[in-house]
Amino acid sequence: MKKAIILLSGGLDSATLVAIAKSEGYMLYCLSFSYGQRHSIELEAADRVASSNDVTEHKIANLDLRLFGGSALTDDIDVPKDRTADEMVADIPVTYVPARNTIFLSFALAYAEVIGAKDIFIGVNALDYSGYPDCRPEYIEAFEKLANLATKAGVEDIDRIKIQAPLLQMSKAEIISTGTSLDVDYSITISCYDPDDKGLACGHCDSCQLRIKGFKEAGIVDPTRYQEQ
Amino acid sequence: MKKAIILLSGGLDSATLVAIAKSEGYMLYCLSFSYGQRHSIELEAADRVASSNDVTEHKIANLDLRLFGGSALTDDIDVPKDRTADEMVADIPVTYVPARNTIFLSFALAYAEVIGAKDIFIGVNALDYSGYPDCRPEYIEAFEKLANLATKAGVEDIDRIKIQAPLLQMSKAEIISTGTSLDVDYSITISCYDPDDKGLACGHCDSCQLRIKGFKEAGIVDPTRYQEQ
Repeated sequence: MKKAIILLSGGLDSATLVAIAKSEGYMLYCLSFSYGQRHSIELEAADRVASSNDVTEHKIANLDLRLFGGSALTDDIDVPKDRTADEMVADIPVTYVPARNTIFLSFALAYAEVIGAKDIFIGVNALDYSGYPDCRPEYIEAFEKLANLATKAGVEDIDRIKIQAPLLQMSKAEIISTGTSLDVDYSITISCYDPDDKGLACGHCDSCQLRIKGFKEAGIVDPTRYQEQ
Repeated sequence: MKKAIILLSGGLDSATLVAIAKSEGYMLYCLSFSYGQRHSIELEAADRVASSNDVTEHKIANLDLRLFGGSALTDDIDVPKDRTADEMVADIPVTYVPARNTIFLSFALAYAEVIGAKDIFIGVNALDYSGYPDCRPEYIEAFEKLANLATKAGVEDIDRIKIQAPLLQMSKAEIISTGTSLDVDYSITISCYDPDDKGLACGHCDSCQLRIKGFKEAGIVDPTRYQEQ
């Protein structure tokens, strides 16, 4: 069986990603990060997703991106709430973590090289996250090129590494429909940038808004537990 | 004054790198890593180099590459000794750490983006380390391309990020001559893959051998403290 590294955050997108890789027959090696994000609830969700998918291995890498700061997800900057769709795509949001996907993919590359995996799955999406530079197709292509120069694959005559981003051009509704057809249990995932202590979603950050809209457009009941307003 | 991120290991090459960036008038932001390497003596040397160069900032990122394994520098694999020059370039050595330069450059990229630096200095060398895939010119070019797609620089119309690798095509003797002309104190640096508890170099690993040969060819007295044989 071929092996895949899956970048797993515990959100809706990466839970769908796991289901897609599983349906394609890969052995699943999941990688999550404790990177100084404000809520550890994300890692608990990642753990639930890994457990419910019978993955071969789930590693958590510790790295403290608070060392550099510069993001609402790692610093004491307020997470924006109730922004319109236009506002979300107008600028690079404060929830953007500098070079985060590059760092995550670099670790996935190390993991892939050590276990001999040729496929790295990442749940980036270019439509909803058009404000994030490292969620664009040209970024993914550039990383794939780099990956094959960076590793033994680039020197020895062996199979190339592929960066698989199956959600790249899907709408949130399409992601949810795809996941639902693959039996993803979205109740165990969390998308919120600003959950409370019990893990209940705020319902107002960009990520919650995109999730709510996605379930609505997909015509699927949203199992997310939101804070009472 | 323009800012530069310098990847600083405490070795001969990165000490020279600091001196070059300093001579070009950059404000120096140094970045070192505690990545599970077998000896912390490396970080002490990095600290000495930073202190003696009046750097603006020196950050140490913690990340544990032992999580993946796969290298003599992070695992309990013996460091090879007394290899010939031909043996050193014949294969990818066991001291290669999978995707290490990609991980290090990714962190440097995050740091650069947060402080607004446009130049990232890395002390890779394509001649002595031809066995390492991530020390080749085409790798550095691919990372520069990626860096400009990964960050705000790629979306907004601002200055491009440059990966500066001034040692790339230099021989070890040329690096030592260059550093000596810039007053680098090589006695405070350490290159050895397998130093003893006191920080004395083994004199036999690939890195020691290249260093010894470099000083000899440069006609400069080697200030390194070696273990008594």
